[in-house]
Amino acid sequence: MTDSDSDFSLPASEYAGRIERLREAMATEGLDAYVVFHAIRVAYLTGFFHQITERPIVLILTPDGRQVMLVPKLEQEHVATIPGIDRAASYPEYPTGGTVHPMEHLRSLLVELGMTRSGVRIGFDHDGPLDMNGYRGAPFSQVMGAGTETIEARQLIDQLRAVKSPAEIALIAEASRWADRAHGIMQETMAVGRSDLEIGQTAAFQASQLLLAELGSGYQAPSRSFFQPWCGLPVALYMISGSGTALPHGLPGAVGLQPGDLIETFATVDIGGYQTELERTMIVGEPSAEIRRSFDTMLQLQDLAFAAVRPGRTLAEIETEITAAFDALGVRDAQRHHTGHGIGLEGHEAPFIDLGDHTIVEPGMVFTIEPGLYLIGTGGFRHSDTVVVREHGVERLTHYPRDLDALVVG
Amino acid sequence: MTDSDSDFSLPASEYAGRIERLREAMATEGLDAYVVFHAIRVAYLTGFFHQITERPIVLILTPDGRQVMLVPKLEQEHVATIPGIDRAASYPEYPTGGTVHPMEHLRSLLVELGMTRSGVRIGFDHDGPLDMNGYRGAPFSQVMGAGTETIEARQLIDQLRAVKSPAEIALIAEASRWADRAHGIMQETMAVGRSDLEIGQTAAFQASQLLLAELGSGYQAPSRSFFQPWCGLPVALYMISGSGTALPHGLPGAVGLQPGDLIETFATVDIGGYQTELERTMIVGEPSAEIRRSFDTMLQLQDLAFAAVRPGRTLAEIETEITAAFDALGVRDAQRHHTGHGIGLEGHEAPFIDLGDHTIVEPGMVFTIEPGLYLIGTGGFRHSDTVVVREHGVERLTHYPRDLDALVVG
Repeated sequence: MTDSDSDFSLPASEYAGRIERLREAMATEGLDAYVVFHAIRVAYLTGFFHQITERPIVLILTPDGRQVMLVPKLEQEHVATIPGIDRAASYPEYPTGGTVHPMEHLRSLLVELGMTRSGVRIGFDHDGPLDMNGYRGAPFSQVMGAGTETIEARQLIDQLRAVKSPAEIALIAEASRWADRAHGIMQETMAVGRSDLEIGQTAAFQASQLLLAELGSGYQAPSRSFFQPWCGLPVALYMISGSGTALPHGLPGAVGLQPGDLIETFATVDIGGYQTELERTMIVGEPSAEIRRSFDTMLQLQDLAFAAVRPGRTLAEIETEITAAFDALGVRDAQRHHTGHGIGLEGHEAPFIDLGDHTIVEPGMVFTIEPGLYLIGTGGFRHSDTVVVREHGVERLTHYPRDLDALVVG
Repeated sequence: MTDSDSDFSLPASEYAGRIERLREAMATEGLDAYVVFHAIRVAYLTGFFHQITERPIVLILTPDGRQVMLVPKLEQEHVATIPGIDRAASYPEYPTGGTVHPMEHLRSLLVELGMTRSGVRIGFDHDGPLDMNGYRGAPFSQVMGAGTETIEARQLIDQLRAVKSPAEIALIAEASRWADRAHGIMQETMAVGRSDLEIGQTAAFQASQLLLAELGSGYQAPSRSFFQPWCGLPVALYMISGSGTALPHGLPGAVGLQPGDLIETFATVDIGGYQTELERTMIVGEPSAEIRRSFDTMLQLQDLAFAAVRPGRTLAEIETEITAAFDALGVRDAQRHHTGHGIGLEGHEAPFIDLGDHTIVEPGMVFTIEPGLYLIGTGGFRHSDTVVVREHGVERLTHYPRDLDALVVG
């Protein structure tokens, strides 16, 4: 990560390894082939990042061990740059650019690839392309008809995604270092009278310029393009202040900061498609005794959660312990969400630190740790840090100061 | 739109009208109730904008005429602020926050609302929540079981979305005026040696600051939060330069502009959740005769497309005419995508100006008009303008200069 002209893309061997592990899981499940529709899973398996639009992009793992992609004509050259793709087929346009729907092109391609022969069992991650940007089409299973066996098998990929490789962890750690720096810039930008939006925008712009200057000309922010017009900044920063903080997912306001305001911040950075999450509770001016009490309780709960996440335990066990701590501290009513979520190519992803998630914690999993207190009338108290699970517990990847004295605004 | 403290949210009557028209369409289709899963359709029908996460948010139109929402506990106060919602039910957390999955909570709620009584036909837009952020669950139709009749009826909502009201058109027009201004700032920022990313970011930041200063404290950019951490800027600007422009969806580079570079720009602005699209082909330094020729051909095709879009024609008819013009001009090989797409709450949405879309054009539809020429080795030529269909043809909402002389850098 020290090469200043690194493009932070993972080596081809990383993708080859993922395909190999997916093939092993397919063998265990008795699947001969696999069809991937979701852009995030296509990116995970191939390194081909693209914005989801109405035009389907499909990855096919054939029974004879090849990777074939079906893309709209306008993506043909783009996909040709991806190592590991044995063949790129294309269709003219969506809904047809002529007379044939992309799903019919897919069916013809699968016939040609021998995937409709009797006895071939095809796994898929999603029953056709996503309902986005006006895409419409029959479900994949229906398009293939009763003669072809299609089996929903999304977990085979998502289970792989849940445990990060050293290379993935290095990207999330790099994103986390930048989140720490960007958050520092945001804190320096805060001042009474300045609005949430103004502070967030100014700081995100400065931090993005700094990142581009230091990381060099190869930097790309590929994951920003999964769902939306790419918003132009590698660093996202925002904050909400005042009573809005009592809502876990409040929106930033355009009203200036006032003494006594509680602030909830959020910072993320995209490095090579991977995300991080850093959030802090801050306060404008001298904190009251009540604020200090709630802040300390939140900090105590986060410390407990850092300690609770260890390999071999289930996430449900961990959440049971944290929920008991909310009870013991007399703040169970202020608990509004579970303790954390996986993070990687998506800002939230499975598994979840939740009473209903019985996944066993493994080294290499990356989580946010963010037990929060939400007190209607007073405000919200939540720090979120991104951690990676190691043999003996978690290692924090975000290192921003957590104590109240470091988080008071001028 | 001149109230400087407007929050650009639509009046409650607009949403009531949409629900009423959906109810009428349901009656025509023999549906007694409807369940809406997609965040964009929930926002369209209620004005409740939320970021899609692993936690389902569901809108229910009951057989007795009420609107009920099911949300995670952490969104309870947020949804309570939405007029027109008769009841907000909640579940603890995803995957359970206890022992019960959100889809089971939904089923219990629908039983309580009388929607599983025999003879009740329930429409839905999507067979359960979207595959995003690690959400998993059985399809809605399966959760409800064979005893309840559930019918995919997404088109009832998407058909309404396709024809914009005067209030929606006013928001897109306001977004377009800002896109024009922001694009002007980006053009002023362009200079030999400056990179695509640096120019886009600097200009987006300046334009966003200007927008917030002029539109006042009520401004929100709600739609930015559908899929991603909100990126902090109401204005998105980017550009790609050099040979990358030959790819319709190329990525911005970090290499500085050079004389002779072709540039493809993109500008969008979010006003009240509505999007616009403005794109220009530009050139650094004196254009060669070859560049002038291709540019003029592109301009001619866009003029033809502006004239071709008129009420009463089908989109397929229009695309046939434009495709014939590519042929007549000898550039059919350089045509890589159809002429345009609908735009509104999504940056791309149905219907499409495509050979396979037989939708009849109606006043109030909003499209991008963007026939493009892509010449491998030379580069891409594409202007995109957002237009609204009126009685006698289209009215442009983006007004940025289109002629080559106005689009030369330095």
